[in-house]
Amino acid sequence: MVSARGKFLTFEGLDGCGKSTQMEMLAEVLRRDGIDVVTTREPGGTPTGEKIRSVILDSKTRFLHPMAELALMFAARAQHIAEIVQPSLEAGRWVLCDRFTDSSEAYQGGGRQMGSQLILDMHKIVCGDLWPEMTILMDSDPEASVARARRRNRANATDGVDENRFEREKIEFFQRVRDAYNAIADREPQRVYKVDARRSKDVTHPEIVRAVRERMG
Amino acid sequence: MVSARGKFLTFEGLDGCGKSTQMEMLAEVLRRDGIDVVTTREPGGTPTGEKIRSVILDSKTRFLHPMAELALMFAARAQHIAEIVQPSLEAGRWVLCDRFTDSSEAYQGGGRQMGSQLILDMHKIVCGDLWPEMTILMDSDPEASVARARRRNRANATDGVDENRFEREKIEFFQRVRDAYNAIADREPQRVYKVDARRSKDVTHPEIVRAVRERMG
Repeated sequence: MVSARGKFLTFEGLDGCGKSTQMEMLAEVLRRDGIDVVTTREPGGTPTGEKIRSVILDSKTRFLHPMAELALMFAARAQHIAEIVQPSLEAGRWVLCDRFTDSSEAYQGGGRQMGSQLILDMHKIVCGDLWPEMTILMDSDPEASVARARRRNRANATDGVDENRFEREKIEFFQRVRDAYNAIADREPQRVYKVDARRSKDVTHPEIVRAVRERMG
Repeated sequence: MVSARGKFLTFEGLDGCGKSTQMEMLAEVLRRDGIDVVTTREPGGTPTGEKIRSVILDSKTRFLHPMAELALMFAARAQHIAEIVQPSLEAGRWVLCDRFTDSSEAYQGGGRQMGSQLILDMHKIVCGDLWPEMTILMDSDPEASVARARRRNRANATDGVDENRFEREKIEFFQRVRDAYNAIADREPQRVYKVDARRSKDVTHPEIVRAVRERMG
């Protein structure tokens, strides 16, 4: 018996754009359709990945060089692919993942101005030809998204979780991240589906479900 | 005033081959010659690098995928170059470093059988054209080196430091590491100076000093 390979879908966008919520809402619908769905996130998703996540995101990690940050992101990604993504796809499951290489291209390539080509070269070495079948890009307003992410991180901080390192960046940084995301969507329209995420989640959700059904069959 | 760029020298070999001792002995001699010397090590060498080191070497880090391990090594390397190696070289200092990319080629390329090309490609992306002026390869017997490294790690364990993850590998792994090191020395004789490290440290030391003086002037 040959079991069909699952589908790999990723959610991308600024922190605070609502992508985690939309990912869970989509997973819910797909499960009701009888699809075996795994939801996961980067960086992290595995115990070793979460250790790496804490080095990357903890604001006590000072002077992290952009190239070191990029390599850490890909270390977490390699571990996540090996432990979660590939085995799930091979078992025929759908993998819904909060962030993937587009995040590196947007944050390190765009935000940190390392450029896209370096990130794509690194992807080729570390991830080979693994790309999502479909990517939902939640396009949002940088000011509003960052304010929302900051509120959430302040709330999490009371539980001892500190993921503030990126939120300390200036608004221009997030504008560059957004521009890089939009450039990816323009370059790869067949993979990336861009959603206007400035609307309420109940408007955005059915649009995402419709797009996924159309593209993934 | 143009200050001369310093020299970058690395020490390579199996854990327990005596390279840290030889590096410190060489540093001592160079300092007596009036040279401004920095000694450092990979992975680690900076607070962030030491955090990454602990993820890589701690034997409680289970199921670390070889590609994730490789990316972590390069993350630590990028940070170390940015914080220590480049600024020191630019200030005209000599940098003596315990391990560099040859270690990745030997341990991940050879030991983990990922091959050399992938490691050289990753080096190009992360480190650009930065290579040591001279590398001292301490060629030693795998059995004896591993036994020595294990004794040291057991001693360190009483201080709560656990760097046992690599020592758990079988002897065939360390034989592949040694073979990969020797292949690098054969490929780049103008950079790599190979020392027979099975002899006593007082025989090895003057040979290293002589070789460094000859090659570095």
